[in-house]
Amino acid sequence: MDSRTDQASQVVSRGTADSRGSLDAISTPGRVADPTEGISHEELGLAARNHGLPLEALRYDVTPPGLHYILTHYDMPVLDAAWTLTIGGRVRTPLTLDLAALRAFPPVTHRVTMECAGNGRARLTPRPVSQPWLVEAVGTADWTGVPLRTLLTEAGVEPDAVEAVFTGADHGVERGVEQDYARSLTLADATATDPEVLVAYEMNGAPLPPQHGHPVRLVVPGWYGMAHVKWLRDITLTDTPFTGFQQAVAYRYRQSPDDPGTPVTRIAPRALMVPPGFPDFMSRTRVVRPGPLRLEGRAWSGRAPVTKVEVSTDDGDTWYEAELAPQDRHSRSHSHSWAWRHWHAPWTATPGTHVLTARATDAEGDTQPVTQPWNRGGFGNNAVQRVTVLCEPQ
Amino acid sequence: MDSRTDQASQVVSRGTADSRGSLDAISTPGRVADPTEGISHEELGLAARNHGLPLEALRYDVTPPGLHYILTHYDMPVLDAAWTLTIGGRVRTPLTLDLAALRAFPPVTHRVTMECAGNGRARLTPRPVSQPWLVEAVGTADWTGVPLRTLLTEAGVEPDAVEAVFTGADHGVERGVEQDYARSLTLADATATDPEVLVAYEMNGAPLPPQHGHPVRLVVPGWYGMAHVKWLRDITLTDTPFTGFQQAVAYRYRQSPDDPGTPVTRIAPRALMVPPGFPDFMSRTRVVRPGPLRLEGRAWSGRAPVTKVEVSTDDGDTWYEAELAPQDRHSRSHSHSWAWRHWHAPWTATPGTHVLTARATDAEGDTQPVTQPWNRGGFGNNAVQRVTVLCEPQ
Repeated sequence: MDSRTDQASQVVSRGTADSRGSLDAISTPGRVADPTEGISHEELGLAARNHGLPLEALRYDVTPPGLHYILTHYDMPVLDAAWTLTIGGRVRTPLTLDLAALRAFPPVTHRVTMECAGNGRARLTPRPVSQPWLVEAVGTADWTGVPLRTLLTEAGVEPDAVEAVFTGADHGVERGVEQDYARSLTLADATATDPEVLVAYEMNGAPLPPQHGHPVRLVVPGWYGMAHVKWLRDITLTDTPFTGFQQAVAYRYRQSPDDPGTPVTRIAPRALMVPPGFPDFMSRTRVVRPGPLRLEGRAWSGRAPVTKVEVSTDDGDTWYEAELAPQDRHSRSHSHSWAWRHWHAPWTATPGTHVLTARATDAEGDTQPVTQPWNRGGFGNNAVQRVTVLCEPQ
Repeated sequence: MDSRTDQASQVVSRGTADSRGSLDAISTPGRVADPTEGISHEELGLAARNHGLPLEALRYDVTPPGLHYILTHYDMPVLDAAWTLTIGGRVRTPLTLDLAALRAFPPVTHRVTMECAGNGRARLTPRPVSQPWLVEAVGTADWTGVPLRTLLTEAGVEPDAVEAVFTGADHGVERGVEQDYARSLTLADATATDPEVLVAYEMNGAPLPPQHGHPVRLVVPGWYGMAHVKWLRDITLTDTPFTGFQQAVAYRYRQSPDDPGTPVTRIAPRALMVPPGFPDFMSRTRVVRPGPLRLEGRAWSGRAPVTKVEVSTDDGDTWYEAELAPQDRHSRSHSHSWAWRHWHAPWTATPGTHVLTARATDAEGDTQPVTQPWNRGGFGNNAVQRVTVLCEPQ
């Protein structure tokens, strides 16, 4: 029996007329802000709960605990020792695994850069009203767990299965729809060897912290954050594509509410710079002294290896190439590391105000725009970061 | 020689006319938002870097790593193994201590609830423009280190010393003033036995993470966060009161820019509730089912022990008393635990919309206002939290 498909259908229905009425009062449709409208208290409420990577933390190869970006759709659930992961649907042998059972499989570790699909949303005009990221929704961690492929082999996938649906223990309402957070992958993506999807129980060598999905989450290297289902409690193989809210309604590139759109999947190339010098508290404008400086940062793409990072110190008028560090040594023998690469470039600061920027290009030729093509959800934004620097004598 | 006092005087000067001109262009005076002005990109930039406690994490006695609130004025500095702490000024024997030297003193651990002095600022009208906290800038940790009193005894305080000035390695510009972050305590506060000030090198049994002041920070139980100087590198005893920016200009209760104001010191009483049920993603309005529920949360005051928590489920029209857990068992034999106390209260939810709130009262009779008295910096805000709940049948 494929209870998951049934549940999926229910999830996208909006309940009875009565419950729809009351939920709709507290859970309004997605909207786009008026161009003159400042950030609202609702958006600020999300910004105060969730957080980005403070950009100076781009210095670390692996993001220290507490500095990796976080986006929690509902509340972080507290899962006790009775937690289990079920694997069912179109499999020969449904499985129920506790943490000890998962740890009994040979562990695999991948270093993965994760980025929120909504990164940069708050800089779009008009602004999609949701978690208002500026540019900082990123982080890199070493994730340890069991390849999903191993677990699916153990359960035995039926020939008619086409997708794996991943359901978390986080429960809430979104745009009028009550739901457990759930996403799917095609069977091909779920069982690929590179990128290799993990059912992860450790982050940087320690048990997952609550905000990263304790005790177990999915890790899908190269994909935006929405795919890495946290607080994972069920994997169901289905014989039809999943139509749950987070798959069929949210996380699609759309131009209008009626546009069916295309799915948000892999991470577009991006470079970020460690802002040089020191900041003003409020404006975050940087102050540097005249003379030679080393600019540095990280670059990544979930689509193909990063092949080039360029830097501009005149707001994009002219560009020069940065030096890229070798592919991360933690990557396996495959062609594409799923973690960011370090880059650095020289700059001689002269008195005055400068706008610094950097852009990454990947092996598919994708690069970063100066002006972001707009979409209604504010997804997949990879417009270049702009860092304003005042250079003045001591 | 008391170089600290000289440095302090320089810190509040605004440099030469030339440098003042260029810094003022990127570092504007404090201001109050127009009542119709939404949250700006500058405020959002701070909200995206810093973060509060997701309120469901009030469930934990000790806040898990990464969920404790963070406010970093400038950048987090990266301090290497060459870091030392110097103790000088009006002492008989100036000291230079590395981490091993600090760890050689008998360690002391205190469980401390810390709150940002600007908590709640974004809900004030008019809104002071700074880090735009709503209600969540709090956290509790076990801090381990050496009592400051022990170190000062080791150095030998001269009879004319009146204050200890604490300087961090974080450097930036604020309201036109370039500075290292620095704060002072009177000698009486610095050497008290309760609350006992710590020079802390562990948080929850592990080395301090970068964002909490690695390798060493000050912990001043009962005081708002600005007193707990992070990335501590120098303690200087002075024979005059410190007039640095964070002491004499920022962190004062003022009604106008010219008002000398009074200093921000200890934490006002506050209760926060774990929002019951589950949330809507965007509005964070809660959904519960009809029937009996247990409301719970935490309450604290840095001024006197919390003696009472009351709950209202009708937006403050009527109140009933919550049950307070015993003082935290980790507190020592003193009368006042410096950590929050757990509380709980029953509620029977009935269909409809409800506004839940809670208020703490401490042994000095201080309690929380429904409407916050305004001050220009938005400091010491302890207006009651309001949690909107929709109760509807399943």
